[in-house]
Amino acid sequence: MIRAIVRKGELMYGDELVGFLDAWDGVMDRRTIPLNVSSLRGMLPKGGTLLGTRRGSPYDHDGGPERVQATFRQMDLDALLVIGGNGSLSVACKLHHDLGLPIIGVPKTIDNDVVGTDMTFGFNTAVQIATDAIDRLHTTAESHDRVMVVEVMGRHSGWIATYAGIAGGATVILIPEEPFDIDKVCELLRSRHERGRYASIVVVAEGAEPKDATMRSRVKVYDQFGHVRLGGIAETIANVIEERTGFETRMVLLGHIQRGGTPTAFDRVLSTRYGVAAIDAVHEASWGHMVALRGDVVTTTPLTDTVGKTRPVDMHLYHEVAEVFFG
Amino acid sequence: MIRAIVRKGELMYGDELVGFLDAWDGVMDRRTIPLNVSSLRGMLPKGGTLLGTRRGSPYDHDGGPERVQATFRQMDLDALLVIGGNGSLSVACKLHHDLGLPIIGVPKTIDNDVVGTDMTFGFNTAVQIATDAIDRLHTTAESHDRVMVVEVMGRHSGWIATYAGIAGGATVILIPEEPFDIDKVCELLRSRHERGRYASIVVVAEGAEPKDATMRSRVKVYDQFGHVRLGGIAETIANVIEERTGFETRMVLLGHIQRGGTPTAFDRVLSTRYGVAAIDAVHEASWGHMVALRGDVVTTTPLTDTVGKTRPVDMHLYHEVAEVFFG
Amino acid sequence: MIRAIVRKGELMYGDELVGFLDAWDGVMDRRTIPLNVSSLRGMLPKGGTLLGTRRGSPYDHDGGPERVQATFRQMDLDALLVIGGNGSLSVACKLHHDLGLPIIGVPKTIDNDVVGTDMTFGFNTAVQIATDAIDRLHTTAESHDRVMVVEVMGRHSGWIATYAGIAGGATVILIPEEPFDIDKVCELLRSRHERGRYASIVVVAEGAEPKDATMRSRVKVYDQFGHVRLGGIAETIANVIEERTGFETRMVLLGHIQRGGTPTAFDRVLSTRYGVAAIDAVHEASWGHMVALRGDVVTTTPLTDTVGKTRPVDMHLYHEVAEVFFG
Amino acid sequence: MIRAIVRKGELMYGDELVGFLDAWDGVMDRRTIPLNVSSLRGMLPKGGTLLGTRRGSPYDHDGGPERVQATFRQMDLDALLVIGGNGSLSVACKLHHDLGLPIIGVPKTIDNDVVGTDMTFGFNTAVQIATDAIDRLHTTAESHDRVMVVEVMGRHSGWIATYAGIAGGATVILIPEEPFDIDKVCELLRSRHERGRYASIVVVAEGAEPKDATMRSRVKVYDQFGHVRLGGIAETIANVIEERTGFETRMVLLGHIQRGGTPTAFDRVLSTRYGVAAIDAVHEASWGHMVALRGDVVTTTPLTDTVGKTRPVDMHLYHEVAEVFFG
Repeated sequence: MIRAIVRKGELMYGDELVGFLDAWDGVMDRRTIPLNVSSLRGMLPKGGTLLGTRRGSPYDHDGGPERVQATFRQMDLDALLVIGGNGSLSVACKLHHDLGLPIIGVPKTIDNDVVGTDMTFGFNTAVQIATDAIDRLHTTAESHDRVMVVEVMGRHSGWIATYAGIAGGATVILIPEEPFDIDKVCELLRSRHERGRYASIVVVAEGAEPKDATMRSRVKVYDQFGHVRLGGIAETIANVIEERTGFETRMVLLGHIQRGGTPTAFDRVLSTRYGVAAIDAVHEASWGHMVALRGDVVTTTPLTDTVGKTRPVDMHLYHEVAEVFFG
Repeated sequence: MIRAIVRKGELMYGDELVGFLDAWDGVMDRRTIPLNVSSLRGMLPKGGTLLGTRRGSPYDHDGGPERVQATFRQMDLDALLVIGGNGSLSVACKLHHDLGLPIIGVPKTIDNDVVGTDMTFGFNTAVQIATDAIDRLHTTAESHDRVMVVEVMGRHSGWIATYAGIAGGATVILIPEEPFDIDKVCELLRSRHERGRYASIVVVAEGAEPKDATMRSRVKVYDQFGHVRLGGIAETIANVIEERTGFETRMVLLGHIQRGGTPTAFDRVLSTRYGVAAIDAVHEASWGHMVALRGDVVTTTPLTDTVGKTRPVDMHLYHEVAEVFFG
Repeated sequence: MIRAIVRKGELMYGDELVGFLDAWDGVMDRRTIPLNVSSLRGMLPKGGTLLGTRRGSPYDHDGGPERVQATFRQMDLDALLVIGGNGSLSVACKLHHDLGLPIIGVPKTIDNDVVGTDMTFGFNTAVQIATDAIDRLHTTAESHDRVMVVEVMGRHSGWIATYAGIAGGATVILIPEEPFDIDKVCELLRSRHERGRYASIVVVAEGAEPKDATMRSRVKVYDQFGHVRLGGIAETIANVIEERTGFETRMVLLGHIQRGGTPTAFDRVLSTRYGVAAIDAVHEASWGHMVALRGDVVTTTPLTDTVGKTRPVDMHLYHEVAEVFFG
Repeated sequence: MIRAIVRKGELMYGDELVGFLDAWDGVMDRRTIPLNVSSLRGMLPKGGTLLGTRRGSPYDHDGGPERVQATFRQMDLDALLVIGGNGSLSVACKLHHDLGLPIIGVPKTIDNDVVGTDMTFGFNTAVQIATDAIDRLHTTAESHDRVMVVEVMGRHSGWIATYAGIAGGATVILIPEEPFDIDKVCELLRSRHERGRYASIVVVAEGAEPKDATMRSRVKVYDQFGHVRLGGIAETIANVIEERTGFETRMVLLGHIQRGGTPTAFDRVLSTRYGVAAIDAVHEASWGHMVALRGDVVTTTPLTDTVGKTRPVDMHLYHEVAEVFFG
C-alpha cells in the first residue's frame, strides 16, 4: 500500500511523503522516516508494518490532539493518511471534525469489520492462514477421532471464523454476532458420532459468547497483565464439550500467526488499489473520507458513516451457506 | 462447489443428484456417477474436477442436442447445472433456448472473463499461483540482471496478467485488451537500466498482441498437433527485447501449473456460495440464468447477457493502478 | 509410505497386505482394511494417517500381547510393520522378543527423537510448518515491539525447536536437553533492547524446563481431563519475561497445527524410501529391526538399540550453530 | 548463509567481512559491499543472492587470475569464501592450487550434483517447488485424461527429477544418468491406459537423453542467442508420445521458477550450518577445502576430490524406489 501511495504521489503528483513511526505516538512526537520511490525498492512482497504499530490515541493524552495539530503546522503537512481499523479510523474522523485536519482513512484490519467497505486490507490473508491451519487439523482430528476447537481472531465480528470455517470445512462455526447454545453444539457432535463421523472441527471467533450464563462466567478474558487472553472461549468450549459428550476434545489457538507474513495476491492488489485511491483522494481534498471497496470498484465514503460501528458478518453467508455444512 | 450443491440439495431439498462425467460427452452418453453427501466426505480441500473435463459441445455432433434432450427424458432430470467458462455457458444458454431445457449456469474459469459476474471460480487461485511464481522470479532476475518475460494464461482477457502483475510487482503488463508497442516496452526497460535497475519482470497474457505486424507474424500460435502453443508470444517478446536492447532476457511459461491443486480459501468460499445459490436457483426454476457475484452478493443473471461476450479486464485497474508501477 | 509398501509388496513380491485400524486396538481386535494398489490410487499427496492413531499398548490390557499373537495366528500373518515413534517401537520390540513375533519397525514421529536413525518421517514437515509460523510472527513482533514466546512440540527433545528456531531466526531457543536460566534469557532480551532491537522471538520446546525451581512449579502440565496441557511452559516464560523486563510479551502455541496436512517433498521421499525398505526387510526376515536413515542411505537397525532411549538434539547444532544467532 | 558467516565471523572471531558483487567479476574489479551484523538485519527469510550472480571465470580473461591475486594483495584479504556449484568450485580449486590463494568452498546449487557432499544448499527448495507444481498438474492431467511431460532442472544429473518425481507421484522419471528408451515409455503409458488410467505425469530432467539417435537429433538445445533452450527435451518427448500413442500430451517447463524465493526450513538450516562451518574453516586455515554434509555432520573435504566430476543421482533411489511407482 505504501509503495502505491508513494509511487503515485511522487511520480504522478510530485508529492513529498513522510511516514510517521509507531502510529499516533509518532504523529504527536514528529518521529518520521522519509518515504520515496527509491527508498522503497523491493518492498512489495513483504508483509507487515514498515512504520510500526501502537495502540492508543491522541485523545488518551492531555493536549494530544493539539500536538497532532502542531505537527501539521510545524511540518507544513497538506494531508494525513490514517491506515487502520475501527479504532484508528474513529480517531481520524474525530480529529478531522474537531480540528478540521485534512485526513483520509484507509481500512486495514484483518477483522473485516469496518462499515462502509466490502473488504478491509488484511482480511483475505488472515482467512488464508486460518484455512491452511484448519486443513491440517482435519488430519489430526480424523486420525485421533477427536473434536478440535479452533479459535480464530474476531473479537467483535465473525468474518474470519465464517470464511475460514466455510473454506476449511468446519463442523460448526461460532461467532460474536449470534450467542451460541452449547447444548445444540454438543447435540450436533453427538449426532455426527452416531453417523460414524468421529472427527469434528469447531471454529470459534474469540468474541463468540455462550448463551448460558454459567458457561460465560467460566471464560477468562484477561490475563494477569491485563492483556486480552487468547483462548479463553476456546478452552471453555473444549472443556464443556468433553465434559458433556465424553468425546476427546482439544483446543487450538491460531493467535498471532494469523497476522504478518507475505500477503495473499488478492490482498496485495487490494492494498495497491487502496493506496492509489488514497493519494487520489488527497488531491481531490476528500477530507474526512476513507477509501472503500464497493463491489469491484474502489471509491470513498465519509468516515462519519463508519465511526462507532462494527460491520457484522453477512448473516446470509452464515445462515444460508455456512450452516449447510454444519454437522 | 459440488459438495455445497449436494449437501444443500440432498439435506435441505431432498434432491437426488448425479454427476455427468467428461462434460457434454457424459451428458450425451449418460455416463454418470452418483453424488450424495456420504460419497463426498473429505472432498473439500481438493482441487480440480471430480467429474472430468472435455472440450467440445453437443452442437459439434449430429443430433447432439437431441441426445442431451433424450438424457433429460430418459433419466427424468428436473434440472442440469452447467459449470464452466464462456464456452460451456454459451452451450447451456443455447440448449435452454433451443430446446427449453431447464438449465442453470455456474461461472467457473480461471480466466475471470465471464460477463455478468464480478468473479469466476478459479480466478483467485490462478492469480495466487502466478503471483507466487513471479515472486520467485525476482530473485533470479535480480541476481542475474535479467529481463524475465512471464507468460500467464488469458487468451482473450488480461485478468490474470493484471492481478498477478500488480501483486507480483511487474515492470510492465501486456494484455489482449490493448495491443502493445514493443518499442515503448524496450524504451521503458532501457530507462530503468539507466537508473541502475537491471532486473525487470514483464508479465504477458498469452493472448496479448503486438501492434507491429512483423512481430505479430513471428508468433507461433499452434504446434504441430494443432494444440494451442504455450509461449508463442512470450518467446517472441523475449527475443525482440534481447535483440533490441541487448539485455539478457529469459522467458518463463507458467502454463498448466496455473490450474489445479488446492484452491485458495477465497475461491473455496466463492465456490461454496455458488453451489448453494445454484441449487437454490434450481428450486426457484431460474432456467437460463447463471449464478453470479455482484459486489458481495451472490445473485443470478440471464445467460443471454453473457453469451458471445468476453469480459475485458477493468481498464481503470490496468491504467490507473497497474501502470503506476510500470518502469 | 503405505503406498510404497503396498506397491513394492504387491507388484514386486506378490504380497497380500492389510492395514490394522486404530493402531494396537485394531491389531488386538482384528479390525482391518484391505490395502492394495488399486485401492490406494491418488493417496500420495495427502497427509495423515489413513489407518487412524491410538495411544496405548497391548501391554496395558490383560492378555493384550496374547491377543496380538492370536491375530497373527488367525489371520496367518507373515509379518507386522509397526509405524510410529518411541512408544510404538518399544512395544514392537517387546512383542518381538517376548513372543517371537515377526515385526519390523518404521520410525515415524514429528519429534525426530528415535535413536538409531538420522531422521524420522514427519519431522521435516513439522519443522517447515513451525518455521512458516515463526516467519509470520516476526512481522507482529517488529510492528508492536514485542517479545513473542512460541511453543513448539518436543516433550523430550529439542529437535523441532532447534531446527525451526534456526530457520526462523529465533532470538533464543529453549530445549528439554538443557535446563534454561530465565535470568540469562531476560538479560539477553534487555541487551537487545539496549541495542535498539525491540522485537524478539523466543522458541521453546514444550518439554523445556527452567533451572529455577519456583518457576518450574508455576508450569501447569496437565489440564482438568489429564490431557497434557499445551502452553504450560510458554505461558510461564512469557509471564516471567514480562514481569522481569517490563517488555510486552505474548505467547503463541503452535500445537496441533504442527501435525497433519500435506507432507513436504523431502518427507514424502523419506517415507517412500522407508516404505520400500520396510517391505524389503520383511522379505529379508529382519525381524526385530527398524528401517533407518544413516547419512543418505536407508538401512536397518535392531530395535533393541532404540528402546527406552530418546535421541537428544545434536548439541553441536544447538551450541555451535543456533547460539550464534541468539541475542 | 551470509548471515551465519557474518555473525560468527564478526561476533565470535572479530573478523571484518566484505562481499564481492557479481561473482568473479566483482573479485577481479574489487567491487564490494560491506557485510556486517547490523547491515544484515532481517535477511533470514529472503531467498536469492544478495551479491548477484555471474557466469564466467577469471580464467576466461587474460590476466584474470592475476587480477584476483591483486585483489587479495590490495585489499589485504585473509581468505575468500567461494559459494557456488561445480563451476565456481572448480575455479576456486584452480586458483588455490595455481596461485596458493587461501580459498574455502561452499556447495550451493539447486542441482545437488557436487561430489563430496550429501547435499548442496538450494536443492531442497528446488525439489519442494517442483513437487508443488507436479501436485497441481495431477488435477489437469486427470480431468483432461492427458499425459503431462514436466521438465525440471538438471542438465547433468537427475537429482531434482528423481526427488520431485517420487514426491510428486510421477508415472515415469527420465534422467541424464541413464539414456531412456522412448518405446518403453510409450508402452508403459499404453499399459496404464489399458488398465483405465488415462492421466500420466512424465518428469524429465533437462539433460535427459533418448537412446534413439533420430529422436536425439530433434531436440533443440540452444536458442538463437546461444542461451540454453528450455524445454528442448520435454517438447520432443511430448511430441513423440503423442505421435506414437495418440494420447493427448502437453509439456510443462518449470524453468526459472525452480530457483529463488524463500528457501525451505531445511535449506535454511543447511545454509546456516554451512556458513558457520565455512568461517570455522577459515580460522582453521583449511585452504582448498569445501564444507560438506556427510550424514548429519557438517565437515570439510578437499576441493580436488570434487573438481571435474558430477555427482550422479543415487541409482539405488532411482531403481529401487522411484521405479516401484512407474506405470
